[in-house]
Amino acid sequence: MSDTSLPPTERASGAKPSLSKSSLSRRRFLNLAGIGAGAAVAGGGAALAAPAAGTPDPNIVPVPDWTKTLGAPVNENPYGKPSVFEKDVVRREVTWLTASSQSSVSFTPLYALDSAITPNGLCFVRHHGGQAEIEPDKYRLMIHGLVDKPLVFTLEDLKRMPGRVNRAYFLECAANSGMEWRGAQLNGCQFTHGMIHNLFYTGVPLKTLLDMAGVNPKGKWVLAEGADAAVMTRSIPLEKAMNDCLVAFGMNGEALRPEQGYPVRLVVPGWEGNMWVKWLRRLKVGDQPWQQREETSKYTDLLADGRSRRFTFVMDAKSVVTSPSPQAPLKHKGPNVLSGIAWSGRGTISRVDVSLDGGRNWTTARIDGPAMPMSMTRFYLDFDWAGQELMVQSRAMDDTGYVQPTKQELRAIRGTNSIYHNNGIQTWLVRSNGETENVEVG
Amino acid sequence: MSDTSLPPTERASGAKPSLSKSSLSRRRFLNLAGIGAGAAVAGGGAALAAPAAGTPDPNIVPVPDWTKTLGAPVNENPYGKPSVFEKDVVRREVTWLTASSQSSVSFTPLYALDSAITPNGLCFVRHHGGQAEIEPDKYRLMIHGLVDKPLVFTLEDLKRMPGRVNRAYFLECAANSGMEWRGAQLNGCQFTHGMIHNLFYTGVPLKTLLDMAGVNPKGKWVLAEGADAAVMTRSIPLEKAMNDCLVAFGMNGEALRPEQGYPVRLVVPGWEGNMWVKWLRRLKVGDQPWQQREETSKYTDLLADGRSRRFTFVMDAKSVVTSPSPQAPLKHKGPNVLSGIAWSGRGTISRVDVSLDGGRNWTTARIDGPAMPMSMTRFYLDFDWAGQELMVQSRAMDDTGYVQPTKQELRAIRGTNSIYHNNGIQTWLVRSNGETENVEVG
Repeated sequence: MSDTSLPPTERASGAKPSLSKSSLSRRRFLNLAGIGAGAAVAGGGAALAAPAAGTPDPNIVPVPDWTKTLGAPVNENPYGKPSVFEKDVVRREVTWLTASSQSSVSFTPLYALDSAITPNGLCFVRHHGGQAEIEPDKYRLMIHGLVDKPLVFTLEDLKRMPGRVNRAYFLECAANSGMEWRGAQLNGCQFTHGMIHNLFYTGVPLKTLLDMAGVNPKGKWVLAEGADAAVMTRSIPLEKAMNDCLVAFGMNGEALRPEQGYPVRLVVPGWEGNMWVKWLRRLKVGDQPWQQREETSKYTDLLADGRSRRFTFVMDAKSVVTSPSPQAPLKHKGPNVLSGIAWSGRGTISRVDVSLDGGRNWTTARIDGPAMPMSMTRFYLDFDWAGQELMVQSRAMDDTGYVQPTKQELRAIRGTNSIYHNNGIQTWLVRSNGETENVEVG
Repeated sequence: MSDTSLPPTERASGAKPSLSKSSLSRRRFLNLAGIGAGAAVAGGGAALAAPAAGTPDPNIVPVPDWTKTLGAPVNENPYGKPSVFEKDVVRREVTWLTASSQSSVSFTPLYALDSAITPNGLCFVRHHGGQAEIEPDKYRLMIHGLVDKPLVFTLEDLKRMPGRVNRAYFLECAANSGMEWRGAQLNGCQFTHGMIHNLFYTGVPLKTLLDMAGVNPKGKWVLAEGADAAVMTRSIPLEKAMNDCLVAFGMNGEALRPEQGYPVRLVVPGWEGNMWVKWLRRLKVGDQPWQQREETSKYTDLLADGRSRRFTFVMDAKSVVTSPSPQAPLKHKGPNVLSGIAWSGRGTISRVDVSLDGGRNWTTARIDGPAMPMSMTRFYLDFDWAGQELMVQSRAMDDTGYVQPTKQELRAIRGTNSIYHNNGIQTWLVRSNGETENVEVG
């Protein structure tokens, strides 16, 4: 062995290594080394330079190629990309769900993500008429209807408006988990729960713009219209518009991504994603809702008796375990980290409980980081796994006292006709070999 | 005109438009429409459908192409990219600063960013031996030296460690603003201040790993070593290592980017970026610092008398106005938003003052969002610009009472030999035509 087997910074120390390369495979070494507690280096620290015997990890002692040769230059990618080893962490479609790829959805790979922030490149995409590519210089936002002074804003106008803010909010499609109304169907939290993301938005309070236009006392609703080919239109109560909606031009520090409405989208905190109109073109103040297609034929909740709930704007408290999950099976016995996300459109997540036995026993999870209102919250449960079957569930609570219901409780009230507003408790079955699948309890 | 000039959702209303297309250029329209207050639609809201006279904005009335045709499918980019119209928002090098592109730096385009979070693709890159491309399955982290039980961790081991956390921290290179010691030199905050980013890190407290190894009572320092070709090595006081350092594998929700140390980097909150060893390979506990190249020849602060300050770990409170700035000149008189960032390695930003006249008069800026310790904070000042020359400055204060000094105050104490730890107040001169440049106040 050459002395490259020494840590490079200690080569000058004079120690002469005499290392017999282990023939053990990495797998066998890991088995020998035990789980979770790291792998004890045989013979102690000094033995690393010259181990007398034992089974050193073949990946720690020799100097790897990436230490021996210069790497890529600093500006290989002026706009950076993920590692080539992360190429499977991407948005995915379920092609049989939708008829066209322009009016479709691709899902956030929740199983591979952590933290409470979603990376911009992995935010789920839902279009009704394809992704509009808007020239920012030609972008205009019009405010009209029951206002004293109709106004048109350029993008630069919006960026010069007083009172710019940054706020973290989750955006969940009303149809997230929609297929689950009729039983466990999609095998992965990317597909069952992946129509959600959580971002810091930069923008102007909608109230500021409406106040400039001067809302007529008869004004009670605001119509928001998108500039894409679907011309998405939704009616929003004026009270909500004046309370906390944003006209946003930034996400996680940079410009909105094209698929998220570049250059401007509406932010409607805590309310269903369909109302967060992308490529926002027009806001009209009126005295009643407009009864557009997307709030009558769609985005209403058909009940068992044939009647529909409508204007079901708020996304109720919900959670899901993202790991373990079907795309992130358990690989090791011993210590493991259960990780998940929780959110509520009514306020702040105050507590998340986790069950490993299908809802019989519950343990309060550790909520990580500052929990913010109407923003996704990360939770963890550190646990030891002996290899037994698990039925993993999570149950979110918010600061209004609301508790996430079971799917059965939801179905008892709402039937199974709807595809919207399914916030029922999700169950993952972890088999003794670690493979995990979507199941229903009871 | 066809009735496509009507908002599409109102075509059924029966109104017949009769619009004579304006021949005014967009520029003239904007001038006519006034600044900041939006552009009043001639004749009021009803007139939009059929304006009698006036100068309607040619970009709001006709239906644009992007509303007439289907856009791109939902999964054109399984990993998303910025808009084609944002192609200039990239990391940039200053080629004369460094001799090779492997040991160089590319800077964060701060002038184009907002919020307190840096998008992963735009975080500045500083390498000393190129970007190592590490295979995650072969990644190992060794802990040895003055410990009871030397340990080797795989990446999966780290991801199964109890106590995983997410924390937002700024990372600033000690040499950020280093060229400014000898006067205003680089014309843009991307280059003067762009060796900083602010991310949510996912990882394990370093204390957890050290406690598992069992630190010998003689252990006072930790050597952190990177696996890249530079074999970056820095000595870190054990007290800091046990206090708040993280062994991180995630940034802003996804895996670390390759140029940020994939798969694992050290996070040393509030301390100079050089210590946040990327591609972290080894941690050795010792009883004294190792006096490595990067803490003796480099990353020490040469004073006027020839002596050097060393172990100047903490990044003191600092701020910069990102807009207006040389790369983001003022374009419009009237309302404008001054935007900037502030940070402190000693705690939380408690206040930022802004001057428009070179430090004679100061106004307290509006701090946006939750200010977190050792995390970047966004501030705004809404102001009206009449076209006069401005000398824009910002001055950060943290919750220890520390106030960001002027460059002159720094030079009086530290001279101009160093390239490190320049946290002096930055001045931008805004000329009456809006062009902005880097100057010094005498």
